[in-house]
Amino acid sequence: MYKIGYLGPKGTFAYDAAIAYTNGATCELIEFPEISELIYGVDSGKVDKALVPIENALEGTVNITADMLVHEVNVKISGEVVLPIRHYLLARPGIELKDVKMVISHPQALAQCRKYLYNNLKGVEQRPTTSTAAAAREVSASESHWAAIANKKTSEIYGLKILSEDIQDHLANSTRFVVMSKSGSEPTGYDKTSIAFTVENSPGSLLAALKLFADKNINLTKIESRPMKTLLGQYLFLVDFEGHERDALISEVLENLSNNSKFFVFLGSYPKHKDANGG
Amino acid sequence: MYKIGYLGPKGTFAYDAAIAYTNGATCELIEFPEISELIYGVDSGKVDKALVPIENALEGTVNITADMLVHEVNVKISGEVVLPIRHYLLARPGIELKDVKMVISHPQALAQCRKYLYNNLKGVEQRPTTSTAAAAREVSASESHWAAIANKKTSEIYGLKILSEDIQDHLANSTRFVVMSKSGSEPTGYDKTSIAFTVENSPGSLLAALKLFADKNINLTKIESRPMKTLLGQYLFLVDFEGHERDALISEVLENLSNNSKFFVFLGSYPKHKDANGG
Repeated sequence: MYKIGYLGPKGTFAYDAAIAYTNGATCELIEFPEISELIYGVDSGKVDKALVPIENALEGTVNITADMLVHEVNVKISGEVVLPIRHYLLARPGIELKDVKMVISHPQALAQCRKYLYNNLKGVEQRPTTSTAAAAREVSASESHWAAIANKKTSEIYGLKILSEDIQDHLANSTRFVVMSKSGSEPTGYDKTSIAFTVENSPGSLLAALKLFADKNINLTKIESRPMKTLLGQYLFLVDFEGHERDALISEVLENLSNNSKFFVFLGSYPKHKDANGG
Repeated sequence: MYKIGYLGPKGTFAYDAAIAYTNGATCELIEFPEISELIYGVDSGKVDKALVPIENALEGTVNITADMLVHEVNVKISGEVVLPIRHYLLARPGIELKDVKMVISHPQALAQCRKYLYNNLKGVEQRPTTSTAAAAREVSASESHWAAIANKKTSEIYGLKILSEDIQDHLANSTRFVVMSKSGSEPTGYDKTSIAFTVENSPGSLLAALKLFADKNINLTKIESRPMKTLLGQYLFLVDFEGHERDALISEVLENLSNNSKFFVFLGSYPKHKDANGG
């Protein structure tokens, strides 16, 4: 049976993303404790696909996902899922907000709720966990006055009460997950492509690279810089744009860009996310 | 007396950066437990200046620093310090590598040593702390078989032994600290400027903004995208380039760019870092 990996345990946002992606198809969902093991799991063939968070509307790129894709593994992006993210502060029954002595969650979730924590739980210790659901599970198993930041569903799974809801710093919070697999996707006519490349350290060199896209009227949906991990000040660019590598226009730009870059990685062409309204 | 804030406790890389910046001048060094409080400390006038990490060669931008500068406070960048970063694994005397049950450090330091930890301490729990020196202090005070990732000096300050040295994933690791204060710096002839701005979501709009710089032969030393924190897919760009806002060429480009951007923030003009060789 088809195996799909996700960042566990059950109840994480990544679990929701995996459910949304499979959309009722028969497959085996396999949980991994960490993002690095999940990505290595696809690379080594332990799973056929994996749902991996790559970008959040508040906190930006998930560095480990972007960096491993570019530098460490030979896998492609074959799809994407965008999920709205609403955070809840959860504790064992009987605990009130004023009793909370420690808040635990995934570092991204703690960061997405920074203002709430500063205003409501200033000075209370924070401790990161490997996932939001792991935090909820740990709070339910602990004897202490701890609280977890996690999604609403985990309050049911782990028997926790809701102390506060929608505590993310901005209401319109969402996370983009990419589907990783050993090969890419066929063109659908509604696709995106992701690449990584470097440019020379001279005025206008990034401009020349971006001009290749603008000249063909190709819309960049994302441009992000990440360190090359060699010297401070050396960057690579992660660029997403509309179209599929097999479109004649796109393949021409990609060939041109890869011929003119010292470092170029094709990360994949894949169907763009469609929300419930099909848009 | 002049007050300079840094991310404490004594022995952090930020402490070294503060010492390097003051270069023997008389001033009072004031420690802060968290980056957010340090930045609020400059904004509210508790300290005259603060040394704040903004970028690491391996892990990239320190999100909280960049985001608070752009969105939350009214402070300027008035200087920068670049420090080489070498990480050490430290434990209480008598503890060997095989005994280590938990590794604690600042999340950036844990991330910078990810491969070392995967290869040498796979499966050992990791727990983030507020700073590298706080981790060393906590290990020295604990009865447990814990290890800290921190710099060499903390092994002397907190009486710890060195289990492994230079454990960062790449040898050429360094961190850039910015000096924050309520006002900027005078031109020195060897300056940099930092700004943040948004562009329209259309093909070629980022290109048009970058062209303003390329046309005047202004060298961009950094371009970085961060989420606008409104909707997924809405970004702002953080750009560093050579020159001072009072240079005629630069002020013309800045005026042009700010007139053509819905969102524009001038973050400061300041002397570029000089290393020990003056370069």
